[in-house]
Amino acid sequence: MTQNVYKLNILRLDHRPYRDKRITTHCALVGRAFGADEFYFSGTEDSGIITVITKTNENWGGNYRIEFVEDALSYAKNFKENGGVIIHLTMYGLRVQDKIDEIKKLKRTKDLLLIVGGAKVPTEYFQLANYNIAIGNQPHSEVSALALVLYLLDASCLSKEFNNSKLKIMPDNNFKKIIRK
Amino acid sequence: MTQNVYKLNILRLDHRPYRDKRITTHCALVGRAFGADEFYFSGTEDSGIITVITKTNENWGGNYRIEFVEDALSYAKNFKENGGVIIHLTMYGLRVQDKIDEIKKLKRTKDLLLIVGGAKVPTEYFQLANYNIAIGNQPHSEVSALALVLYLLDASCLSKEFNNSKLKIMPDNNFKKIIRK
Repeated sequence: MTQNVYKLNILRLDHRPYRDKRITTHCALVGRAFGADEFYFSGTEDSGIITVITKTNENWGGNYRIEFVEDALSYAKNFKENGGVIIHLTMYGLRVQDKIDEIKKLKRTKDLLLIVGGAKVPTEYFQLANYNIAIGNQPHSEVSALALVLYLLDASCLSKEFNNSKLKIMPDNNFKKIIRK
Repeated sequence: MTQNVYKLNILRLDHRPYRDKRITTHCALVGRAFGADEFYFSGTEDSGIITVITKTNENWGGNYRIEFVEDALSYAKNFKENGGVIIHLTMYGLRVQDKIDEIKKLKRTKDLLLIVGGAKVPTEYFQLANYNIAIGNQPHSEVSALALVLYLLDASCLSKEFNNSKLKIMPDNNFKKIIRK
């Protein structure tokens, strides 16, 4: 699987290291595993998360980028001004099953930014977003919302191959089989 | 959407309150949102998680059950002895895209138990499982693995309706619209 022609980026808002450490890390890992190109997070700068993703890239390959952004709203506004489409994942949004075909078409010709919230998402993001989309209108998780939307955007993400990996799993029903290159 | 005829249960191993609090809670919420019936967790007993799920049920409806189990291996063995099928989610397992049709067929006539691991899953679970299944052979998250397998088992889980809810969202692209009953 080659890099996306158009960017598929993620912005995770308002990271709080004490409360969110593993949630933000898992969001970043989900983005990498299921085909996003770049992951940005705002809130508190946290080198631990960047280290986890950098090591994951070293071992498991690929060109996934991660970066802290000071001003998330400016980043998002700039993304949109440059022609990108913003999809804010929120349980209050339109049903993903009703909108995914439209968004998949846009993905062929536009950069996409998936925004996942922190504690309470400011109204500006709802207004800025081209789409406010719910992955089921029930409470669950930023991690699952991201995973499901990435899968719905491209089901082949389950078979994504990564360049330059040191480790590779040979899928097996009985044993842990890892190839070290 | 009515209750499943056959049980669809989740077992989360080795919960550690300090490290896993939100991850285990998010796993439990994902199970509820996407169609599982019962959620069991082992490791450290943690009433906080049970409280979150109980309140979520009160507000958002449904009959989802959550329970701490002291001896997870006995619970899983007993589940299998009673005719249930065990699916252990692990990045080392067989590719879900190759096995999901087979598992969906089993779901029509058998109880299913989805096991998600903690820090390091003991070999016994790999051996006990009918299937060791990978949701992509890359590192990501218990939360995303559960969400994706539940979706793949039944895509209609995105539209699941819950009985006896106090709150209900009216999906909208601009505003948070909640009906309080």
